[in-house]
Amino acid sequence: MKTAITPTRAENFSEWYQNLIAAADLAENAPVRGCMTIKPYGWAIWELMRDQMDKRIKACGVQNAQFPLLIPINFFNREAEHVAGFAKEAAVVTHYRLKMIDGVLQPDPNAKLTEPYIIRPTSETIIGDAMARWVQSYRDLPLKLNQWVNVMRWEMRPRLFLRTSEFYWQEGHNAFATHEDANADARKMHRVYGDYMREVLAIPSIMGEKTPDERFAGADHTYTLEHIMQDGKALQAGTSHDLGQHFAKSFNIQYLDTDGQLKYAWTTSWGVSTRMMGGVFMTHSDDDGLVLPPLIAPHQVVIIPITRTENADALNAYAEQLGARLSAADVRVLVDTSDMRSSDKMWKWIKRGVPLRVEIGAREMDENIISITRRDLGKSSKQTMTADAFVADVKNILAQIQQDMYNAVVERNKTMIHDVADLAALESALESGKIGFFRIKYDLTMNDQFNELVEKYKISRRCLDDADQQYVFVAKSY
Amino acid sequence: MKTAITPTRAENFSEWYQNLIAAADLAENAPVRGCMTIKPYGWAIWELMRDQMDKRIKACGVQNAQFPLLIPINFFNREAEHVAGFAKEAAVVTHYRLKMIDGVLQPDPNAKLTEPYIIRPTSETIIGDAMARWVQSYRDLPLKLNQWVNVMRWEMRPRLFLRTSEFYWQEGHNAFATHEDANADARKMHRVYGDYMREVLAIPSIMGEKTPDERFAGADHTYTLEHIMQDGKALQAGTSHDLGQHFAKSFNIQYLDTDGQLKYAWTTSWGVSTRMMGGVFMTHSDDDGLVLPPLIAPHQVVIIPITRTENADALNAYAEQLGARLSAADVRVLVDTSDMRSSDKMWKWIKRGVPLRVEIGAREMDENIISITRRDLGKSSKQTMTADAFVADVKNILAQIQQDMYNAVVERNKTMIHDVADLAALESALESGKIGFFRIKYDLTMNDQFNELVEKYKISRRCLDDADQQYVFVAKSY
Repeated sequence: MKTAITPTRAENFSEWYQNLIAAADLAENAPVRGCMTIKPYGWAIWELMRDQMDKRIKACGVQNAQFPLLIPINFFNREAEHVAGFAKEAAVVTHYRLKMIDGVLQPDPNAKLTEPYIIRPTSETIIGDAMARWVQSYRDLPLKLNQWVNVMRWEMRPRLFLRTSEFYWQEGHNAFATHEDANADARKMHRVYGDYMREVLAIPSIMGEKTPDERFAGADHTYTLEHIMQDGKALQAGTSHDLGQHFAKSFNIQYLDTDGQLKYAWTTSWGVSTRMMGGVFMTHSDDDGLVLPPLIAPHQVVIIPITRTENADALNAYAEQLGARLSAADVRVLVDTSDMRSSDKMWKWIKRGVPLRVEIGAREMDENIISITRRDLGKSSKQTMTADAFVADVKNILAQIQQDMYNAVVERNKTMIHDVADLAALESALESGKIGFFRIKYDLTMNDQFNELVEKYKISRRCLDDADQQYVFVAKSY
Repeated sequence: MKTAITPTRAENFSEWYQNLIAAADLAENAPVRGCMTIKPYGWAIWELMRDQMDKRIKACGVQNAQFPLLIPINFFNREAEHVAGFAKEAAVVTHYRLKMIDGVLQPDPNAKLTEPYIIRPTSETIIGDAMARWVQSYRDLPLKLNQWVNVMRWEMRPRLFLRTSEFYWQEGHNAFATHEDANADARKMHRVYGDYMREVLAIPSIMGEKTPDERFAGADHTYTLEHIMQDGKALQAGTSHDLGQHFAKSFNIQYLDTDGQLKYAWTTSWGVSTRMMGGVFMTHSDDDGLVLPPLIAPHQVVIIPITRTENADALNAYAEQLGARLSAADVRVLVDTSDMRSSDKMWKWIKRGVPLRVEIGAREMDENIISITRRDLGKSSKQTMTADAFVADVKNILAQIQQDMYNAVVERNKTMIHDVADLAALESALESGKIGFFRIKYDLTMNDQFNELVEKYKISRRCLDDADQQYVFVAKSY
């Protein structure tokens, strides 16, 4: 059977992904090393993802603010693990002026910065510095801040959405009076992310804590959400960190407690990024292109009038009318009256993953009926109904698609998670080419043997199992 | 009379502004040269401004996208006027890694970029490069793109919101088949801005075209919106540029026309930024602090229960109840049940410019009445009404405040615009210390004499008068 995307997932998952992004017109490589340009259709998806996340974040009592893009090197250098984790991929600003010298435009040697800046890879340091000023007494705590910004981590092997030098994210930074409060909040934001991914992205998360070697650079605990892609590889979709007092001590975030003592605060940070978009695309899409959950689809319904020259005007007008009724019912709808051929339109919107496709031909118009097809189920789901019935039911249909898409991933994941008894069993499973997540009993004394397998099979410890922390999930990953 | 902000506007406008920003907790200088940190209250205002502008932009058929932060120097260098206009304030990225050398963390000499990047001061170049790929035929035009991003122009004399090295803005970039279409659209976006500023920011704009010496670097026509601050100085609140074919030719944006000919497109760009926030603050505020138009106020109403120890719980609960009724009526309301003294609460929210203050004491609660005071009119506007009447009328009261604030600026501006007959009259007005905008008949042959006055009195040509382009507005400016 011919598919809209070649190669198919089964033939070459990685090329399929690349061609999917292009076919759905989501993004392209930018003329800046490792960076992407997010095209209008891709950015519209991100805006929907962002706005729904932003609401949930604000509902937690978090306030948005905006901190500088540039970070003085000495800030960055104050927390040892942090700098070790990020220095290798930092974009460095060294000059503040360009000059034409010998016909070449270049950094002006007379405008060299005494202390260079780096473009933020993450903002614990610059926000820690602000918190030290903003937190004076116990009354100022908890302090809960978030920002939606671009960050940069120099990337040698970029892949659109999954790994790019510049990416877009929210980074939350909270400060508390006690470690108990901080840790509870890091776990709470972890759950907020899990709820969001289930309810908005239609993706179940494997939720757990990172092992020490996989923690954020400067954290005591890192809680992660791991998603299983269709090729069995893991994608880290979000993390929430209990930073202990690492940054509070490096940046002197102190508060006067009720007992009159000056104490260090306890901080957390938590973030999700445009990387999560790559996860959504790889989780739900098929060999005909993108499949979008209705809650994040820029067009939830596309109406395609199947016109012939003699009836185009009437049919387009009829389609516009139906579109207006759906808009009034608060559905995001697009009526495609462009002058492309009907079958080209159909494939265009299939490839872009519009959840519901409505087709109306001359006969349907006369009988006041329509055909609808669900993107997630494909052709076999095609059914006919009256326009009135559709308008009355469209919200339910979209909710059903959202739920069914989630359920489908839950079912698939069941076939992707394997319990293995020991390292030998893990090795033989990997050797046999089995894909997915492997769950294995784990303790630190196994690390040497473990690391051999990590090296040999390019796997990593994804997280400890929240249900029983003696077990760890292991997988190949993006 | 004691004022909440000292010095007052009359005593020292520039210090007043600085203290206003601090008193309203809007922003602070960042530990990065020339940059600011926008605090939660300031950012909440920006989110309201941004979201209302974004809706208007999308209503024009513009699509949001996201282009890279970094621009290769050679891109930047392709349009001669453009590079001349921005090279002197460019932040330059030269390395992609840090290394500890002799105990000092510094740019790794082995990770020097072959070609440096600059942090975007504006994105005509990188978007022009994308447009060259995205525009192939006349069917692809018009192409209307926008992005909400941070940009950077190195600033030696920064002032919060008004002039900072990093700032936040939207930049629209449109491409058309003909110059007529492009110019008409540049003018249209100019009007969209004017409508927004009048309707949302409650500020009338002086709308006109920039004289050649004040144009954007690389534009054929720059349309500007000039606002008159309370000290008579001008603030440029937004611009819309007809870029002719400058960037289309530099970046090879060509389309195949209906006649089979390959033609260069015509492009425009248009932007408003966080600088506009400084204009809002300087336009509406008074000696007691910020005054916010209701449409951009994070809290449109603040409810202050005037509690005593014995009735605090009951009164706070009563206030919360009223708050819930206002929230249900879609009003942004804050009930201040914090443990500050009532008078401190009152001054806190006066300084932060909340449009309507509701006070409820024990007697009011018993009688089911409240006191309301308008921030824009001050104490004299205090009146008593039943809680029910207030809930029923609050939307109208807020709309009235919005309208009255606009009218007040219109009235004040009338005293700030002066017709002058000739350059001698202009000089004597400036010499006498008259403040505001001066409208004078102008042609390019006067430029030498004009430039002497520009130099001597630190004035500038703000714009040609839209009503009669033989006249130009002249003023000191921010």
